[in-house]
Amino acid sequence: MTISHMAAEVAEIPEVAARFLDLSRDAVQAAAAALRDRDPDLVITVARGSSDHAATYLKYAVELLAGVPVASVGPSIASIYRRPLRLGRAACIGISQSGRSPDIVEMMRAAGAGGALTLAITNFEDAPMAEASAHCLPLRAGAERSVAATKTFVTSALAGLALLAEWQEDADLRAAVAGAPDAFGRALALDWSPLAARLSRAQSAYVLGRGPGFAIAAEAALKFKETCGLHAESYSAAEVLHGPSAIVQARFPVFALGVEDAALPHVVATAERLAAQGADVFLTGGDAAGAMRLPSVDGLHPLLSPLVLAVAFYRFVEELARRRGFDPDTPPHLRKVTETM
Amino acid sequence: MTISHMAAEVAEIPEVAARFLDLSRDAVQAAAAALRDRDPDLVITVARGSSDHAATYLKYAVELLAGVPVASVGPSIASIYRRPLRLGRAACIGISQSGRSPDIVEMMRAAGAGGALTLAITNFEDAPMAEASAHCLPLRAGAERSVAATKTFVTSALAGLALLAEWQEDADLRAAVAGAPDAFGRALALDWSPLAARLSRAQSAYVLGRGPGFAIAAEAALKFKETCGLHAESYSAAEVLHGPSAIVQARFPVFALGVEDAALPHVVATAERLAAQGADVFLTGGDAAGAMRLPSVDGLHPLLSPLVLAVAFYRFVEELARRRGFDPDTPPHLRKVTETM
Repeated sequence: MTISHMAAEVAEIPEVAARFLDLSRDAVQAAAAALRDRDPDLVITVARGSSDHAATYLKYAVELLAGVPVASVGPSIASIYRRPLRLGRAACIGISQSGRSPDIVEMMRAAGAGGALTLAITNFEDAPMAEASAHCLPLRAGAERSVAATKTFVTSALAGLALLAEWQEDADLRAAVAGAPDAFGRALALDWSPLAARLSRAQSAYVLGRGPGFAIAAEAALKFKETCGLHAESYSAAEVLHGPSAIVQARFPVFALGVEDAALPHVVATAERLAAQGADVFLTGGDAAGAMRLPSVDGLHPLLSPLVLAVAFYRFVEELARRRGFDPDTPPHLRKVTETM
Repeated sequence: MTISHMAAEVAEIPEVAARFLDLSRDAVQAAAAALRDRDPDLVITVARGSSDHAATYLKYAVELLAGVPVASVGPSIASIYRRPLRLGRAACIGISQSGRSPDIVEMMRAAGAGGALTLAITNFEDAPMAEASAHCLPLRAGAERSVAATKTFVTSALAGLALLAEWQEDADLRAAVAGAPDAFGRALALDWSPLAARLSRAQSAYVLGRGPGFAIAAEAALKFKETCGLHAESYSAAEVLHGPSAIVQARFPVFALGVEDAALPHVVATAERLAAQGADVFLTGGDAAGAMRLPSVDGLHPLLSPLVLAVAFYRFVEELARRRGFDPDTPPHLRKVTETM
């Protein structure tokens, strides 16, 4: 039996992550030194699709560890509206697998022209986005043949964490980053078959998270759409109670990403409330009355845990796609590189 | 026949908007003067639910007109993670109808303690959020009995535009704000019955926009969930092509919010592409091959146009809710004031 490109690329994640950490040490150090020099009051992120979820992940990590606010700027501000932003003492981090979407490249160029310190995270160090930026962290993840990004998503987010650990010279996060390849390997062994059984025919679902886990919820919802034809939507476990829970009727599937951090009791509380509404709730951390607990890799740094969940999710969703009759490598209507303005 | 609270509150929008502009002139001037004094390098927004869509609206407006980057900060950063952010020369705008959700109040207090200039936009000038902020723009929209916010959403966004116009002393936007009540009145007369016919039994849909129109797409998607039990999800008209279009199969309903601004050709291009995939596409601006054009109020300031669309949408969605068998005033599982941490 031939396995899909997606399955092969997910299985490669521990090795790709280890290679990135090994080969990109100097690039990470140089970019971190530039961040310490600049001491930014603001970090701007520029990205689309899965890469934008890596940017959201980084937003929470930077705000929680460095205390510097992070703004996601729509690339259209530069590419369509042509409005230069006042970027004073900002750092601008662009994330793109291909490094080629014209709107992203234009925004990085505009940010640099406006005085921002620009850093590109991309798979290809000769990509136009890398050339438009002062620093580049090349992922060196190898070709990604599956349209759905997996190994490049995880490596992009890990690159961001590695950069943050060096910028802040934070020993705990440094150790967590060094241990990431091993944790990713353990995540590949998790069994989430009860969730697969529930989602084998579902049409709609919610994926919930909080803090950095929210970014992984967003990524999971996108992958459900791309590979399984499932209309999954992500919400913060708080935000979902401000309106969206209205469509959560009996047996509505809810996948709640809980990790061991300060937000876990709140994720559990939301899981219990939606279970009480009759939803079929699956939860990866803590224990919620009425919800099914899925196995997880425990004892990790709270800024790494959600990324480890992403690895477990990727293996899971590739199998779910085939179970639902989809070829995970060829999502309808999509190509690998999407170029937008 | 008794009309719903929601219908009555939507019909009130022109009058409520005019009253806000009349009664809040001094508060807007004082807050604008404080913004000019502070000359912020960064604007932070803090909000949830519909109010967060008003904040997104304001993000695009501030970035496009003032050139100052805007970051949405998750209230959990203060309320759960208890991480003080470095807010240097920032202004922090909180938006909440009730002004009472503890996470929002805590974030405003933390921002003020960190040195940010804090401004509250809320319906109640004695709300805890107002008391935790240096300035307040009270909406004075009267009681909102419908759970789904309508008049307070529009007035919050208009308050933000009024503040921006005075802060930047921009004559065009000032004139647009003054003319808003009249434009809202014209929006109430628009007939979108072809869209209602298509959505009378739909289970899933996408709502698309770009720039400030994206914020209105997000608000529309939330209202479809709250009042119609319809799983509608919003995307930027660029972002939807980076993956989510995979679930757009034949006859999938797509509602594209186009307004007369620089992004319109790109919204039209996305509408055409999704129509070519077989989607049933409805569009409010421009002309797209294969899409149905809905009527709109034309000739408006590009920062006001999307908000005028929101008014037309609210009247439309209240009717759609009843057509789908829902009472628009009592969404399942929701209460008017949601308090989260």
